[in-house]
Amino acid sequence: MNDRMNALRERVGIAYGGDYNPEQWSDEVQEEDLRLMKEAGVSLVSVGIFSWASVEPRPGEYDFDWLDRVMDRLAGGGVAACLATMTASPPPWLTTRHPEMLTVRADGSTISPGGRQHYCPSSPVYRSHAVRLAEQVATRYADHPALAIWHVNNEYGNVIPCHCDVSAAAFRRWLADRYGSVEGLNEAWSTRFWAQGYSSFEEVLPPRSPAPFANPAHALDYARFTSDELLACYLAEKEVLRRVTPDVPVTTNFPPSLRPVDQWTWAPHVDVIGYDAYPDPLDADAASKVAFSYDVMRSLRGGQPWLLMEQAPGGVNWRPRNAAKPRGAMRLWSWQAVAHGADAVMFFQWRQSRGGAEKFHSAMVPHGGPSTRLFGEVSALGRELGAVRDLAGAESPRADVAMVLDWPSWWALEGPAHPSTDVRFLDAAWSCHRPLFDAGVACDVVRADADLSAYRLVVVPNLYLTSDEAARALTRYVEEGGTLVMSFFSGIVDPYDRVHLGGYPAPFRAMLGLTVEEFHPLAEDASVGLTDGSGTVWSEEVRLEGAEAVAHFTTGPLAGEPAVTRHRFGRGEAWYLATRPDPQAMRGLFDRVRDAAGVTPVLPGLPEGVQACVREKNGSRWYVVLNHGAEAADVPLPAPMRDELTGAAPAASLRLKRRGVAVLRSI
Amino acid sequence: MNDRMNALRERVGIAYGGDYNPEQWSDEVQEEDLRLMKEAGVSLVSVGIFSWASVEPRPGEYDFDWLDRVMDRLAGGGVAACLATMTASPPPWLTTRHPEMLTVRADGSTISPGGRQHYCPSSPVYRSHAVRLAEQVATRYADHPALAIWHVNNEYGNVIPCHCDVSAAAFRRWLADRYGSVEGLNEAWSTRFWAQGYSSFEEVLPPRSPAPFANPAHALDYARFTSDELLACYLAEKEVLRRVTPDVPVTTNFPPSLRPVDQWTWAPHVDVIGYDAYPDPLDADAASKVAFSYDVMRSLRGGQPWLLMEQAPGGVNWRPRNAAKPRGAMRLWSWQAVAHGADAVMFFQWRQSRGGAEKFHSAMVPHGGPSTRLFGEVSALGRELGAVRDLAGAESPRADVAMVLDWPSWWALEGPAHPSTDVRFLDAAWSCHRPLFDAGVACDVVRADADLSAYRLVVVPNLYLTSDEAARALTRYVEEGGTLVMSFFSGIVDPYDRVHLGGYPAPFRAMLGLTVEEFHPLAEDASVGLTDGSGTVWSEEVRLEGAEAVAHFTTGPLAGEPAVTRHRFGRGEAWYLATRPDPQAMRGLFDRVRDAAGVTPVLPGLPEGVQACVREKNGSRWYVVLNHGAEAADVPLPAPMRDELTGAAPAASLRLKRRGVAVLRSI
Amino acid sequence: MNDRMNALRERVGIAYGGDYNPEQWSDEVQEEDLRLMKEAGVSLVSVGIFSWASVEPRPGEYDFDWLDRVMDRLAGGGVAACLATMTASPPPWLTTRHPEMLTVRADGSTISPGGRQHYCPSSPVYRSHAVRLAEQVATRYADHPALAIWHVNNEYGNVIPCHCDVSAAAFRRWLADRYGSVEGLNEAWSTRFWAQGYSSFEEVLPPRSPAPFANPAHALDYARFTSDELLACYLAEKEVLRRVTPDVPVTTNFPPSLRPVDQWTWAPHVDVIGYDAYPDPLDADAASKVAFSYDVMRSLRGGQPWLLMEQAPGGVNWRPRNAAKPRGAMRLWSWQAVAHGADAVMFFQWRQSRGGAEKFHSAMVPHGGPSTRLFGEVSALGRELGAVRDLAGAESPRADVAMVLDWPSWWALEGPAHPSTDVRFLDAAWSCHRPLFDAGVACDVVRADADLSAYRLVVVPNLYLTSDEAARALTRYVEEGGTLVMSFFSGIVDPYDRVHLGGYPAPFRAMLGLTVEEFHPLAEDASVGLTDGSGTVWSEEVRLEGAEAVAHFTTGPLAGEPAVTRHRFGRGEAWYLATRPDPQAMRGLFDRVRDAAGVTPVLPGLPEGVQACVREKNGSRWYVVLNHGAEAADVPLPAPMRDELTGAAPAASLRLKRRGVAVLRSI
Repeated sequence: MNDRMNALRERVGIAYGGDYNPEQWSDEVQEEDLRLMKEAGVSLVSVGIFSWASVEPRPGEYDFDWLDRVMDRLAGGGVAACLATMTASPPPWLTTRHPEMLTVRADGSTISPGGRQHYCPSSPVYRSHAVRLAEQVATRYADHPALAIWHVNNEYGNVIPCHCDVSAAAFRRWLADRYGSVEGLNEAWSTRFWAQGYSSFEEVLPPRSPAPFANPAHALDYARFTSDELLACYLAEKEVLRRVTPDVPVTTNFPPSLRPVDQWTWAPHVDVIGYDAYPDPLDADAASKVAFSYDVMRSLRGGQPWLLMEQAPGGVNWRPRNAAKPRGAMRLWSWQAVAHGADAVMFFQWRQSRGGAEKFHSAMVPHGGPSTRLFGEVSALGRELGAVRDLAGAESPRADVAMVLDWPSWWALEGPAHPSTDVRFLDAAWSCHRPLFDAGVACDVVRADADLSAYRLVVVPNLYLTSDEAARALTRYVEEGGTLVMSFFSGIVDPYDRVHLGGYPAPFRAMLGLTVEEFHPLAEDASVGLTDGSGTVWSEEVRLEGAEAVAHFTTGPLAGEPAVTRHRFGRGEAWYLATRPDPQAMRGLFDRVRDAAGVTPVLPGLPEGVQACVREKNGSRWYVVLNHGAEAADVPLPAPMRDELTGAAPAASLRLKRRGVAVLRSI
Repeated sequence: MNDRMNALRERVGIAYGGDYNPEQWSDEVQEEDLRLMKEAGVSLVSVGIFSWASVEPRPGEYDFDWLDRVMDRLAGGGVAACLATMTASPPPWLTTRHPEMLTVRADGSTISPGGRQHYCPSSPVYRSHAVRLAEQVATRYADHPALAIWHVNNEYGNVIPCHCDVSAAAFRRWLADRYGSVEGLNEAWSTRFWAQGYSSFEEVLPPRSPAPFANPAHALDYARFTSDELLACYLAEKEVLRRVTPDVPVTTNFPPSLRPVDQWTWAPHVDVIGYDAYPDPLDADAASKVAFSYDVMRSLRGGQPWLLMEQAPGGVNWRPRNAAKPRGAMRLWSWQAVAHGADAVMFFQWRQSRGGAEKFHSAMVPHGGPSTRLFGEVSALGRELGAVRDLAGAESPRADVAMVLDWPSWWALEGPAHPSTDVRFLDAAWSCHRPLFDAGVACDVVRADADLSAYRLVVVPNLYLTSDEAARALTRYVEEGGTLVMSFFSGIVDPYDRVHLGGYPAPFRAMLGLTVEEFHPLAEDASVGLTDGSGTVWSEEVRLEGAEAVAHFTTGPLAGEPAVTRHRFGRGEAWYLATRPDPQAMRGLFDRVRDAAGVTPVLPGLPEGVQACVREKNGSRWYVVLNHGAEAADVPLPAPMRDELTGAAPAASLRLKRRGVAVLRSI
Repeated sequence: MNDRMNALRERVGIAYGGDYNPEQWSDEVQEEDLRLMKEAGVSLVSVGIFSWASVEPRPGEYDFDWLDRVMDRLAGGGVAACLATMTASPPPWLTTRHPEMLTVRADGSTISPGGRQHYCPSSPVYRSHAVRLAEQVATRYADHPALAIWHVNNEYGNVIPCHCDVSAAAFRRWLADRYGSVEGLNEAWSTRFWAQGYSSFEEVLPPRSPAPFANPAHALDYARFTSDELLACYLAEKEVLRRVTPDVPVTTNFPPSLRPVDQWTWAPHVDVIGYDAYPDPLDADAASKVAFSYDVMRSLRGGQPWLLMEQAPGGVNWRPRNAAKPRGAMRLWSWQAVAHGADAVMFFQWRQSRGGAEKFHSAMVPHGGPSTRLFGEVSALGRELGAVRDLAGAESPRADVAMVLDWPSWWALEGPAHPSTDVRFLDAAWSCHRPLFDAGVACDVVRADADLSAYRLVVVPNLYLTSDEAARALTRYVEEGGTLVMSFFSGIVDPYDRVHLGGYPAPFRAMLGLTVEEFHPLAEDASVGLTDGSGTVWSEEVRLEGAEAVAHFTTGPLAGEPAVTRHRFGRGEAWYLATRPDPQAMRGLFDRVRDAAGVTPVLPGLPEGVQACVREKNGSRWYVVLNHGAEAADVPLPAPMRDELTGAAPAASLRLKRRGVAVLRSI
């Protein structure tokens, strides 16, 4: 598949650009667009994401003339097109004729047209119209010189899960495929409880807000089904594109929230991973949180470069409060994506809309036009990225640390009727990723059943749902000498959300050398004392069965009981966290575990707040170094390197200003 | 009726056990269940609560074989069955065929199947199917040796009030019965206001979220109607059971929230009160709050023993955060129920579910099995309870203090468009009950129109709705020498939520010696200064008309005005609280009132934090003494007694460890 | 039009009274009502607001007998009637027959009958029945001696916006009128974005909660449409009244929330402005907030007297917590209305309801009857107002300061997907009005495109939506020598919610001498340092282009950048606030601006907390002086005056107690 991407890379290097929605603007403005794109170093734009109504203004009646002119102009200007299939927002004529294709929420209310993405992914009406449009677009532009890559639909994961009758029927078919017989379904869903035994698949409905709770297995399968239905939408369009343009790469963009779709199942079907990232400038932890997302993206296809398809040059419009980025953050965070393996730095959108729902979402060309400070910074960044064309295609080498991420486990973890609603996967993952990020340590993200033998350290945050395969893989890893850190409420249920009996966490008791007797989640915003620091969110009663206690609870009903444990198992070592230590305690703990496992930062002696990432290609190695701290910092250099941005080759150390960036290449 | 219960008492003593849902488990596990029940001292289990789909897997097609085996096994093992009619959760085949029987919420949305209790209590479809099933079960097991008592449905009060068209029609019939003519309805509901005058009953709807508020009298009658419809469901099943098995006692279990149904109207129809109690381990006031519920239960049938039908051995699954009970609390709180008159200590559930919505609700046999600490403690408690068989059947003698509880008043108090949404009945009741609990004083709960002559002190928290009968009863009580404490916003409206005119609180002005000019509820979380302590929630302008001020407001717009008053009336004394004093001030006030009324603790000299309750049978008297405090305590003994749990007969005093329990019997 | 009002003024002076709903009471009580009205000095009552079901108990069947008696009794007692058309709350028989006339919320749920105002204003069923009733009432009472003024419907603005299919069709007609062609609509709404292009008006729906956001232009037009539809309801009834009784004035009452309808478009259609004011006694800023509302009312018809149609003598019933007014506040706040130009002081309601949804809304005759303290104060106030009959008809002279208020801008400002949900118009207006109020400075409220030449100072809070006319008017004002203060996020969009391109705020950049680069709204409840005080809600990056910085940000990402600026432009001066300074900083700033503009308080040397307002008639001038402060105050008098309330003529200064009032007339 990378072959398909090579042509794009040769053409654009590290792609730079954004969503381009020229149908909002006059020909004059579009002419200016091309001039400004050149000025800003734009090499790739995503065209037509929301153009359905513009290219098919009435059923089956197409108007591509305006788009022909756009594409011609791009080609003429040397800008490549990431051309959309335009199916993300159905036009008014379609929903007026087919209101049955609208999304129905769990509470029974229908999502009214007037926004976007208001379609049921199981709707045959939606699918047939979408595929028909994709075919029209593909055929029209198959040979257009501007076409570089296909952009299918948009942020599928943001489609609100549909609970309509069409979805219900599709869900039943999906269940019949999965379980074969209704007995199988009853067994998997534990329907003997609460008299939920089905006598036929025909009795099954989507989890439409039952009271007081849905059956969690039911809810979990609906999340799987929803991910699969969206994937089916993607694949239906992809099939058309492959048929018409077999050599053009195809992708779609994952939305900022990682949660909605199982990206492990999607990743094999895209030619390159696309991701939209929107760190919140008002969140002091924005850089470390987005670093985790970027680690996911570069891991989904084993270290291959990925595309940052969208970010905002300044503020967005969809949070309650949307601040612009502080001076320098746009550049710093863009380079951060490249550091984590991105081969594209793209924005939503090129030119800020004059009207409509996203007019206050910042853009490369703001409402103030090219004379703004922001456009100046956008152009400067474009020039910088243009200077490191070589980096495009460089892969991210395997890290020493891996973190396990499993979507069904995530969904199940946050299902109904659990010990605590405060146990959420992203918080758990961030709490473990943060001490690595702060220490300048690289971290891969892996499937729960992956071969882990190459890693020095494996981190397992809240792997609530654990298959037998995953349990075996993790156990074998430790047995054979690995170091593993697992946080509480892992190994609790099987893939059908049924508890692994025999004492928590049954599949890992031997490995961890302990049993958990009872859960004591904490009250809201409460904490519990630890011998070192404090615990948050959760505590539990641990009975040691071979493990040793590394820290104890010092307050609360478990005072004196183990809070963090370590167990020699086979040739390896397994650590267990019976609470979530506060960030400082977590840092201390992870430093200790890393020492034991021999895991070191990407560059030795990295100052606090400075992050470094490596990329490699054809024997070359680049270190992208980023100063996230509040002060300037001196970064010691272990070997002679040249800063690709300045051309300078600093001696023993590199001085980085606040929000400074360097791209070092060994010399 | 108690005759029916005698057989059960003889058979099981203080019943010990839990909900038993064996349809979730294999035969092998069921075999183990019996062995473990024996080990744990289990004498009674509630069988089949949610078994509808298992015994009637298809319409009219019954499968009782598995249940026969369960019942036989129980009989063989000497465990009695509290057998359910199994009607609490309709099976999928029924709701698929009859979606019109599903509950419709006030906002018009339908509760989807997939949880439980998703039925409209007025639905003839639901009722006929439920009665048909009850008849099948009754007939099948009428003569089964395991059968000891019938368990009708489950927690009726948790059924969400239904607003469907079937309910609307039933509501109209109920109103026609109640009011005779539409003129009567218009008068009762004050429909002249806001142009709500009905020209026919046919125009009346359930209060389906009108704007900006429902007519409060309308809402109040819907609460009465809902309680009555649920009672009708109960009675329909009970009728079948009585016909088939006239000698077997019949009950149902009231849910933890006391509010939903008017238990005074239900109590005569059960052979024994059943209650499900779920104190929250994260709530520091859990023991005193649950003590109030237990006082209600033992009062509903005049001091007769009642059954704790459900509690959790550890944590539950339905709060946002569900902590396990701290070490010793399961035992302490179980004995607390017995202290308050319970003849059963039962749990939900026997064996923790492997799947489904309640799998994280703790159980007597946890996921970890019999080797867990918890199962050990469960078994120890079973042995202890087995040692006090004699206690079964002992009644709770009348206390010196009575607290008034009236359900329609509660519902009306929390109706729409009131002076403050912070005035809620349970808070008021708890605030008055707590100083009695803390002082070791026993408290009965009585109807508003009860004969109170035997009490030394009557407490009236927020009796917003006051009938003429209640006003007369309370006034006569004081007149004839009683001491009464009434809190603000009492005596405000009649049973149709119409204000008693003539100055607040009109029915009690003479008794209290005052008039309330205006209400000054406090801002959220605000307090107001008192001469002793502070007031919360509410303040009001009191004009003294014979009463004397015992405390004044010291801050706010009423500074200098009376806050607590006392009035000699007839041969008695009436106190009035124009605010809710903080807990410490409340304790001081109640101590003072008690002194004046001659009310003393159950045992003299009880240390703070230690509770004692009395039960009596055939001239014998047991004191159950419970240490809820954080420290060990010495309890002085007024006379020689023996601790039934240890056999020891301490001399002058008894030492109780933290969470310690003693069952003292006079010798 | 004022001619129509003259008769009323001559008859009642400063009208005093309240809503009178006698259908709730017996004849005996109604007899007492008249006696008490006389005692209380009541001269005008609003009759029949919610009497539809009482006068038309069945379709087309009228019962006016009871109302005849009421009207006769009023006439006999010398009390004038503000007679309602009674159409605010449709009776049960109507909604039972025509459920399609019920309001449908944006989420698709229907507002159930059982409250009030549950009608779709576009419903032909509702409109025809309402007009039919108005005609009946008008004809019946055209010549009744009690009739003094018509009260159409009630608080139209409180009707919840309807999203039903009837509304949808009416909306389409409204849009077709407004835009002529669907192309015009598409252009105005910027529908090219998110594929919202309509191919026909038939495809347009109300904004029924689309996801993730509605198109803001769509939402804005729906707010305009809703205001227009309600106005059409009003006009349809008014037409009947004018035809039947051409000389009787017609009005309706605006609800407390100023926001729902565009009062500039309504004001020409009423003979006198009516307003309902409900300051919250628990809000420390109640007096200054209500002062702003009163300034709006007296400005809507250019300083003409207006009617305070409703206020509460004590507490209301519709907030979560409803405190009574502190002693003296009812009198003070009533006089405050008169000070701001009111010719009526009226209450909801005369006699407190015994039942129904508003029974805890205070009234002139409380539940406690005439012996209450409150009724005594009500009567005292009536006597006071009766003593200043001369004042009736006095107009409010033009102030030196004007504040711009534009309803479409308000609606658009609070539309979806903005930089910050914390930017709300009333907060902005209050923050600018407060420093004027506190300084005793009078302030008019004006249209955005008004001729401002007569003002010394114009204040423009958050004029987000700015038409070309408004931009020109404001610019010309400064150019020609005016002083203007504008707060951030003004001049951003055109009347179709499309951004004015060319740098924020494009229409005002020249006048302000600056460009705004980017918005940095603050985190929730956060603040940012200023050289003097702190900023709240918002900050933004200002590029000076001729303006000078008067204050700077001292913390946050904009530290060192301008926060408040001043620009000489033409012969005038324009100030700009790039944040919302805290109240103390705002006061300092406004004092400074006032000094520069030569704006002084209504009376020189007014102590802090004392407000004075002027009214004028036939060369006479009254100063109503109000002490809102916590202490007594001495008010210096610039000239000899007599206090109309006491008859005293103080020498150099007047002593006002806390909550004291004086009505000074020059002598």
